[in-house]
Amino acid sequence: MKKYRLQIPEGVQDYLVDEQYNKLLIEDKIRKIFDSYGYDEINTPTFEYYDVFSGDDVIIDDESMFKFFDRRGRIMVLRPDMTTPIARMAATKLQSNPLPLRLSYISNVFRYDEPQSARQREFTQAGVELLGSRSSQADAEVVSLAITVLERVGLKNFQVELGQVEFFKSIIDGINLTDGQVEKFRALVEEKNMVALEGFLNNLELPDKVRETVFMLPKLYGGIEVIDEAAKLTNNEKALEALDNLKDIYCLLRDSGLEQYISIDLGMVSSLQYYTGTVFKGFTRGLGFTLLGGGRYDALMGNFGQDMPATGFAVGIKRILVALGKQDMLVKKPAVDFLVTYHRERYAVAVKIADRLRDMGYRVEVDLEGRPAQEILKQRGGTDTIIEIGQDLKIKTLDSQDGGCMIEDIGKWLWELDKQYWGNEG
Amino acid sequence: MKKYRLQIPEGVQDYLVDEQYNKLLIEDKIRKIFDSYGYDEINTPTFEYYDVFSGDDVIIDDESMFKFFDRRGRIMVLRPDMTTPIARMAATKLQSNPLPLRLSYISNVFRYDEPQSARQREFTQAGVELLGSRSSQADAEVVSLAITVLERVGLKNFQVELGQVEFFKSIIDGINLTDGQVEKFRALVEEKNMVALEGFLNNLELPDKVRETVFMLPKLYGGIEVIDEAAKLTNNEKALEALDNLKDIYCLLRDSGLEQYISIDLGMVSSLQYYTGTVFKGFTRGLGFTLLGGGRYDALMGNFGQDMPATGFAVGIKRILVALGKQDMLVKKPAVDFLVTYHRERYAVAVKIADRLRDMGYRVEVDLEGRPAQEILKQRGGTDTIIEIGQDLKIKTLDSQDGGCMIEDIGKWLWELDKQYWGNEG
Repeated sequence: MKKYRLQIPEGVQDYLVDEQYNKLLIEDKIRKIFDSYGYDEINTPTFEYYDVFSGDDVIIDDESMFKFFDRRGRIMVLRPDMTTPIARMAATKLQSNPLPLRLSYISNVFRYDEPQSARQREFTQAGVELLGSRSSQADAEVVSLAITVLERVGLKNFQVELGQVEFFKSIIDGINLTDGQVEKFRALVEEKNMVALEGFLNNLELPDKVRETVFMLPKLYGGIEVIDEAAKLTNNEKALEALDNLKDIYCLLRDSGLEQYISIDLGMVSSLQYYTGTVFKGFTRGLGFTLLGGGRYDALMGNFGQDMPATGFAVGIKRILVALGKQDMLVKKPAVDFLVTYHRERYAVAVKIADRLRDMGYRVEVDLEGRPAQEILKQRGGTDTIIEIGQDLKIKTLDSQDGGCMIEDIGKWLWELDKQYWGNEG
Repeated sequence: MKKYRLQIPEGVQDYLVDEQYNKLLIEDKIRKIFDSYGYDEINTPTFEYYDVFSGDDVIIDDESMFKFFDRRGRIMVLRPDMTTPIARMAATKLQSNPLPLRLSYISNVFRYDEPQSARQREFTQAGVELLGSRSSQADAEVVSLAITVLERVGLKNFQVELGQVEFFKSIIDGINLTDGQVEKFRALVEEKNMVALEGFLNNLELPDKVRETVFMLPKLYGGIEVIDEAAKLTNNEKALEALDNLKDIYCLLRDSGLEQYISIDLGMVSSLQYYTGTVFKGFTRGLGFTLLGGGRYDALMGNFGQDMPATGFAVGIKRILVALGKQDMLVKKPAVDFLVTYHRERYAVAVKIADRLRDMGYRVEVDLEGRPAQEILKQRGGTDTIIEIGQDLKIKTLDSQDGGCMIEDIGKWLWELDKQYWGNEG
């Protein structure tokens, strides 16, 4: 047999029955939330031109992309995120729609990262993009959607942290730094690595006031009071504006009754080239990774020739699955409701009863060999009810609990089941 | 701007709002049908090792695969179908499940075909695989699922044609042909190209009886009587067995009340290396391509070290969309039910009313700028109802039909709406 015939590559996965069941349940809940807020779901190709994703101001590192040549020698990329193709789509195909545009997706994306805990090379993201509004209400709507998602999928103990990358950018704006230094700087702040940050700052010529402020950055997390503390550290006008914006958004979220889920972290300074305002991440206790991330990205649409403010977020479905698993919140897919078996001359009756039950909303298997009910029960165990149709058209039910009974009037029995089903639903 | 930044490659597509809406409606219907028959949905990676898909007896031509190297030099393939990875998965991860295994999927697959009408390089397939049963009931179940799908998505005038590749294989078994000749032969029969077929047959040394039978093949289509006609043409035992099997399946489908949708075509001889029994295709009037295809493939599982009979089918979602479009059966995505706007001091009230309406099941937008209702109505037109919350907390509704009214008691109004919503649903 060929070497790799029975294996799959690292970083991708098969979704077997129970995991796929839970994944679909989560996706369905998220889809309904996005829809209820007036977002319209769209989709884009799994691969498209490298030109769409390349550039200095993109969120995904060039080396993390899966690239290949098509037969005409053009470079294709397995989409590393959905925000970029949606920006392309909005700029080329939705220009005449009234603003704001509310778009959503549930799609797979691909990144060539080293596989590790909950970091995969193919993973499903659900997210929204809110295009065409600069207002704080837009940011607040996107954050409250993110919180609603974490709430409705059933997670306990989650938290959303808000940051504002313009605060950091404004503070370091006056300092003469190379791109490499800015990135090093940013990474140390984001990691809250105080020792290394101190060393780094000592090697720079900085005004004392600036040094003090940036050294404080990783410590600026907590409640709303953090914003006022930060404001005391600087008189840089742009930095103060950024704090005002963050405070606005915080207050809107408080007005929406979501204060309990939110904290502030001014040391959250990811993707400076890409984000242009308030950013946020969602966490849950005991998990070494974020569940979701998002923020304002007012520059991206310009890459596609349509300048436009924008904000959005994406949540990783697999990460939600892992988090729910740790909280013991995953479910097993239920067995079918009924299994119909029959004497070989009574196939037509079996199919008709099965179809009737399916129309009522039940899950029904028809046995393929017409085996005796006892034999099926022995093979499958489980709790599903077996319906057996005899040659004499007598109908029996059998299950592992009550041992079964004879059905005198099939019409009446079906009618009772129908009432029962809709009773459970409504 | 970079050359390809605003374009997408040929053969792939963006799904904009209305098309994605229709696509999701169809997928949801199909998912429910598969589920109601007791099939369990699973998923596999978008790309995996070439070794999984390579070989002589596979359904997808090697040259139709999207291949690329990973960074360790291994060949990867964007999955060209779902049946092969499901066979791999079943052989390696589901061996201990009781048989038969009923598995389903809705996934994107990739083929490097020349793009043409409804033939794409990336497309979504929905399908089932029924593993572990050799019975005619298994074939009949899969065909009736296919018919149910075409019925429930709302197609008019569709037809499913049944063939049996073993009939053709048995007839030509005794003839000394090269692989190339068999393929040429097969293609001429499948295309019903009588002139070329006659020429081809004249160049072969064939017993008269065989020549007569194979020349008849393309004409052997119609109702159940075709099977008896075919039986008269041969005394090849295996060929007669194949006809018996086809008749069995036809009768089971007739017993299931599906006779009206079925016809027979013994000239349907696709993928001889892959299929091993009854095969079928679904069509609708006025469309130059098949909507779905499937059949028995008892040899595939053996490639993965687990010999096992199997049957299944796949339907192309885009093809269903095109067919429904031609029959004028596609819908426009409805506008949101409500749009809430507010005086800037009343954001908290607006959000609360919106959340309450969403909990009831309505789609609700909150205006991001708190614009006056009249201004919104002018920009958007449409039929959604606008709810305006004044600084004095007075609440008005406005729509393009009735011009709106004042709401005296918001609690009572919401309660009435709730009743109305569930009344419509139940």
